[in-house]
Amino acid sequence: MINETLRADGRTPDQLRTIRLTRGWQQVGEGSVLVEFGNTRVLCVASFTEGVPRWKKGQGSGWVTGEYSMLPRATETRSQRESVRGKVGGRTQEISRLLGRSLRAVVDVDALGENTIVLDCDVLQADGGTRTAAITGAYVALADAVAYGKANGLISPGSKVLTDSVSAISVGIIDGRPCLDLPYVEDVAAGTDMNVVMTGSGTFVEVQGTAEHGAFTRDELNQLLALAESGNARLTQLQEECLAGEPGVVFVAEAGK
Amino acid sequence: MINETLRADGRTPDQLRTIRLTRGWQQVGEGSVLVEFGNTRVLCVASFTEGVPRWKKGQGSGWVTGEYSMLPRATETRSQRESVRGKVGGRTQEISRLLGRSLRAVVDVDALGENTIVLDCDVLQADGGTRTAAITGAYVALADAVAYGKANGLISPGSKVLTDSVSAISVGIIDGRPCLDLPYVEDVAAGTDMNVVMTGSGTFVEVQGTAEHGAFTRDELNQLLALAESGNARLTQLQEECLAGEPGVVFVAEAGK
Amino acid sequence: MINETLRADGRTPDQLRTIRLTRGWQQVGEGSVLVEFGNTRVLCVASFTEGVPRWKKGQGSGWVTGEYSMLPRATETRSQRESVRGKVGGRTQEISRLLGRSLRAVVDVDALGENTIVLDCDVLQADGGTRTAAITGAYVALADAVAYGKANGLISPGSKVLTDSVSAISVGIIDGRPCLDLPYVEDVAAGTDMNVVMTGSGTFVEVQGTAEHGAFTRDELNQLLALAESGNARLTQLQEECLAGEPGVVFVAEAGK
Amino acid sequence: MINETLRADGRTPDQLRTIRLTRGWQQVGEGSVLVEFGNTRVLCVASFTEGVPRWKKGQGSGWVTGEYSMLPRATETRSQRESVRGKVGGRTQEISRLLGRSLRAVVDVDALGENTIVLDCDVLQADGGTRTAAITGAYVALADAVAYGKANGLISPGSKVLTDSVSAISVGIIDGRPCLDLPYVEDVAAGTDMNVVMTGSGTFVEVQGTAEHGAFTRDELNQLLALAESGNARLTQLQEECLAGEPGVVFVAEAGK
Amino acid sequence: MINETLRADGRTPDQLRTIRLTRGWQQVGEGSVLVEFGNTRVLCVASFTEGVPRWKKGQGSGWVTGEYSMLPRATETRSQRESVRGKVGGRTQEISRLLGRSLRAVVDVDALGENTIVLDCDVLQADGGTRTAAITGAYVALADAVAYGKANGLISPGSKVLTDSVSAISVGIIDGRPCLDLPYVEDVAAGTDMNVVMTGSGTFVEVQGTAEHGAFTRDELNQLLALAESGNARLTQLQEECLAGEPGVVFVAEAGK
Amino acid sequence: MINETLRADGRTPDQLRTIRLTRGWQQVGEGSVLVEFGNTRVLCVASFTEGVPRWKKGQGSGWVTGEYSMLPRATETRSQRESVRGKVGGRTQEISRLLGRSLRAVVDVDALGENTIVLDCDVLQADGGTRTAAITGAYVALADAVAYGKANGLISPGSKVLTDSVSAISVGIIDGRPCLDLPYVEDVAAGTDMNVVMTGSGTFVEVQGTAEHGAFTRDELNQLLALAESGNARLTQLQEECLAGEPGVVFVAEAGK
Repeated sequence: MINETLRADGRTPDQLRTIRLTRGWQQVGEGSVLVEFGNTRVLCVASFTEGVPRWKKGQGSGWVTGEYSMLPRATETRSQRESVRGKVGGRTQEISRLLGRSLRAVVDVDALGENTIVLDCDVLQADGGTRTAAITGAYVALADAVAYGKANGLISPGSKVLTDSVSAISVGIIDGRPCLDLPYVEDVAAGTDMNVVMTGSGTFVEVQGTAEHGAFTRDELNQLLALAESGNARLTQLQEECLAGEPGVVFVAEAGK
Repeated sequence: MINETLRADGRTPDQLRTIRLTRGWQQVGEGSVLVEFGNTRVLCVASFTEGVPRWKKGQGSGWVTGEYSMLPRATETRSQRESVRGKVGGRTQEISRLLGRSLRAVVDVDALGENTIVLDCDVLQADGGTRTAAITGAYVALADAVAYGKANGLISPGSKVLTDSVSAISVGIIDGRPCLDLPYVEDVAAGTDMNVVMTGSGTFVEVQGTAEHGAFTRDELNQLLALAESGNARLTQLQEECLAGEPGVVFVAEAGK
Repeated sequence: MINETLRADGRTPDQLRTIRLTRGWQQVGEGSVLVEFGNTRVLCVASFTEGVPRWKKGQGSGWVTGEYSMLPRATETRSQRESVRGKVGGRTQEISRLLGRSLRAVVDVDALGENTIVLDCDVLQADGGTRTAAITGAYVALADAVAYGKANGLISPGSKVLTDSVSAISVGIIDGRPCLDLPYVEDVAAGTDMNVVMTGSGTFVEVQGTAEHGAFTRDELNQLLALAESGNARLTQLQEECLAGEPGVVFVAEAGK
Repeated sequence: MINETLRADGRTPDQLRTIRLTRGWQQVGEGSVLVEFGNTRVLCVASFTEGVPRWKKGQGSGWVTGEYSMLPRATETRSQRESVRGKVGGRTQEISRLLGRSLRAVVDVDALGENTIVLDCDVLQADGGTRTAAITGAYVALADAVAYGKANGLISPGSKVLTDSVSAISVGIIDGRPCLDLPYVEDVAAGTDMNVVMTGSGTFVEVQGTAEHGAFTRDELNQLLALAESGNARLTQLQEECLAGEPGVVFVAEAGK
Repeated sequence: MINETLRADGRTPDQLRTIRLTRGWQQVGEGSVLVEFGNTRVLCVASFTEGVPRWKKGQGSGWVTGEYSMLPRATETRSQRESVRGKVGGRTQEISRLLGRSLRAVVDVDALGENTIVLDCDVLQADGGTRTAAITGAYVALADAVAYGKANGLISPGSKVLTDSVSAISVGIIDGRPCLDLPYVEDVAAGTDMNVVMTGSGTFVEVQGTAEHGAFTRDELNQLLALAESGNARLTQLQEECLAGEPGVVFVAEAGK
Repeated sequence: MINETLRADGRTPDQLRTIRLTRGWQQVGEGSVLVEFGNTRVLCVASFTEGVPRWKKGQGSGWVTGEYSMLPRATETRSQRESVRGKVGGRTQEISRLLGRSLRAVVDVDALGENTIVLDCDVLQADGGTRTAAITGAYVALADAVAYGKANGLISPGSKVLTDSVSAISVGIIDGRPCLDLPYVEDVAAGTDMNVVMTGSGTFVEVQGTAEHGAFTRDELNQLLALAESGNARLTQLQEECLAGEPGVVFVAEAGK
């Protein structure tokens, strides 16, 4: 399946970039992770609060949501702040919604009780794959926030709030060849681009494939899914390694090229 | 593959709802279609204007975009208007972006020349599948707008602006059984829900699958894609039939249950 | 009073355009009417909800309000959506306020009880007289919503919620000649333009006359009011005819040229 | 026509409140008037600028527009500022539009040349009739701004920019009796309320009558129009008196009870 | 300290402009002052309401806040209204915050009880020093609102709500010479500009010094503070004189050049 | 001047917290610094672009501006994003304006030529003194952006764009004792709080002192200024040390406790 020539950054088509998860990077937050996929750098902070939004009250179950945003100079060219423009752009909302859905896919909101966890994922530096890095890092911060809730008697100790882990990776077709974990230069060149969110146990949570130029065949789709399965399996190991350390102690898990 | 029991509305799992495309429903617009997927009813109107947005000027190529919106009482419960709320919601923006990308996938913007076509898809009544109905109807209105451009000397007569046709259908897993073209009641019950946008020649433009409850396996994904392929093939026929008539004459193409 | 020459569309000065009221056009809504005044086409949908806005609570009386809006390509030239602009324009607000006041003029809010009825009037196609068509159609949808309230035990059966019917028509001075029911081409040419809202029993609810070019005399005002009285009388008959049918059965009442 | 009993403030039904026009109240502005109708107090300031809005450019004609606003504590109860709410309310927009139309009815925009005059009418204190006071005061400020344009060579000296004068007064039916110039207490009690904008030569520019409770008959309408004619005639005299003084010298014209 | 040459308006460097405080200028408001610093003219109106904002409830203490705004043609060139722009500008917010803090510095919110006083300061005409005029005038309106609260049994009679008085003045370095109370022409020319808010007893509430061009030395800072002390002492006398009159009777206190 | 007892974090009143400037923390940006004042952590990124805003065009001079913002969970309690609220808060705008003014005080905009440098200061973690950290860090990023401009031929090599350096520090009165560099706990307890922006050569750019509770005397003001002078002198040294390294090489300068 894999073509012989190396990619622009020296990777083989099925190789991840250097992945780094720095757990406990902030002092504030009930969980915090600085996640890096190559030069992409996202700060994920979990906020645990007792109570739920009004429309959830009195049902005994909790709520998990996410907000994605990008600093104005995360990219090569500066963008205007959404706060200054006075509205949140379509892309930002779309990724925030994806982030929330992906995390809730592994949360038992009944086990969480009437508590809310918000995951803020702010992109400090963007080089492709910001949404997949955000989901992957946010899961680790979420796990720490759940642990905080148990340690502080806000979630009953025996509750299994997290039913699985969740991670995400991008795949795409570059010059006719399926590749894993696209940096920005590959992302803009990709004929087809797909973000695949998976659980630690290997099932699919979201599959979002888009043909940027032309359309793709059923066969290409199958190859991309296979690459994504292998990438997410590696990210799952990294998340486990990271969460095996002491909560509150800065820990760096690293993988990839 | 198909289970014996009929669905709540009497359809087999692989059956479309009654699909109706009324071409030329409006007097205004360079193309207009009232598209119905069962009780879902979307008015698609194409606006052709000479010139392109500022960021496209002087490149000799055109632009096609779409805007999706829902009337406040399209659904069982009335929603507040987005104009009154003062902002366009995340879901609306997400679908508008999908609509624009899907149409552009079959447009050669160079052949279009410096012209803009906007597809307004307003949901008058919503019963599941509004985005897939919008894409399917919008393609027909787009084709009429391109014809208008040629008839009025705004596009050179030999230009092949449309490289293919495009349609979309939803699929999902209902009670463990893959089903085609979900109405609202099935949509909320679906464990997994997928919207599949395809070209008339059978390749994929967008695949958006979401596990609402739990996650889905690779095998389930494959079954859903097969159903979507058959549904989109039928929609493609219907679009062709509809466009075979005289432009400007109201024509109703109908299929499904 | 009436000059011999026919108008551009072949009507005499005191003649209505073809008026069509399609009751029950939607499946959703506690009342729905597609109203057409010539090529002007407005979808009026009534939403009945128990309870009232906060500032009305505990007074035992109900609330009726209206929202008017226009699809972006209802007109010859596409307009930007108000949701995208992020605010509702002055003209839209002005007509929504007029719509609400006009309907409340024939509603006994005490008899309605603590219930709210919202009338959404969305202009699908605009060719002059959209606000008068909206008021005329909305009354029929309102009547169906009141009937729904009684049929479902939300309004006591003997309550007389509607004290009268209400309709509206435009009049104006075209080339020095008072004319009834102006289409767009006449509307822009009119020296004076007046919208007259009246009850079924022939009294005035709103009189809004504007001199677009120059001013008008007391005598001209009197002639315009006389024309409006005759036009509204005909609309009242049409509304009655339409409401005489079975609720829930699609019924088309038609009048005019 | 006039009933014997005096009104709450001691006036007969056909009597104006004390009207005061203080021309030149501000040092800034090409024209400024503090207009008082009883306790209603509106500051009208004209801003003359060379050039016109983009959509008017190159046509050789000018533009006159108005903006109406109310200070938060102009009324008995404080209202939130529209700048803080982030949007201009429907009532404010409606009155601003009326103000602009009323002034333009007496302006020959071709004679004005490519110049813009904006009339800002800010209500400092509100006791009914703020829109009619605004129109009446704004006309005087507008006349001074036109004079400024001529004095400074921006309008050719012989141009007749103002084709007439314009004023406005409210009328309404209080306890079944038609009354002129309603203060706030009468305004809320009025069954029918009408604002009548007229030229100095006695023709109508705008007639806006609303039945707040119940509807009104053709006969009542006629009586209200007669009262408005007499009130506007008196306001016209006052404007003339005020403008007869030296420009730039503070001058107070006073009339009424 | 003071240079011999007079300033452009004939004042010595340590001289105030003509200051005028017209107490009771409005009929509405629990306190109102028209304050003039030369041609700068600000209308300050106090609104007293029972109760406090939600975040202050149940603590037994009150709240005092201020809102500053400028009419569009307060200045030589007309500005767009903030309500029309849809947001409150940075400068407006900054001054509103300063106004609120300055007033709260002399208020014992516990003695005020659960009541709220809002000070609206609207600049009718601006010629430099609008924020200092606003603070100086607002204190007098605030004192009247407190008196109103006591007179109407909403504040207990013995409560000492106002612990001191507060006033403000601008100072700046013009052509190397420290000057008091800058009009607009001096303000734009100033190398350094400082607003100093002080209590009647001579202590500092706010010191806001900005080097517009270059920076300033510790010695210059000392000279500016000395000037501000003398200016605020004179304003304090004027406020006392003004408040010595009868509440509700229009009283004009005047000082300066 | 200094009281014997140590502060809560073990510092003497005239001691800075640990200050850390990490130059080159980002790969993007023409200059970037992660600045830390104790637990306060601000990411400062400079964006250099050719050209100036429209209102500056054709004058031959450049523009430097700043934008300050805080991540939602920079603080102990999560705040709503300003992009989600749809507007930039007063505090944010106030600090952004201060940041821009402070930097421009040491920039010769003529020497910069028609170029723009924007300094984005995003607070990742807030523990008091965020605006002073932002100014101090932003100066270093600004210096790197100027160097970038020279290295790339966008600024002429001999131009002296930076006329001085600039830094800022907070001071306040804690329990009656003047203290330097306040963390959050001291900031909320401070009777008086002052931010002092100074140049490297020891003159003042901004002095912003606020009495949060009560007012402060001239003598206290003098003591606070002296503390600020010593703190800023130390920050100036640190900035010099940091800028002495190679551009583009990550360098950490550290000072304080």
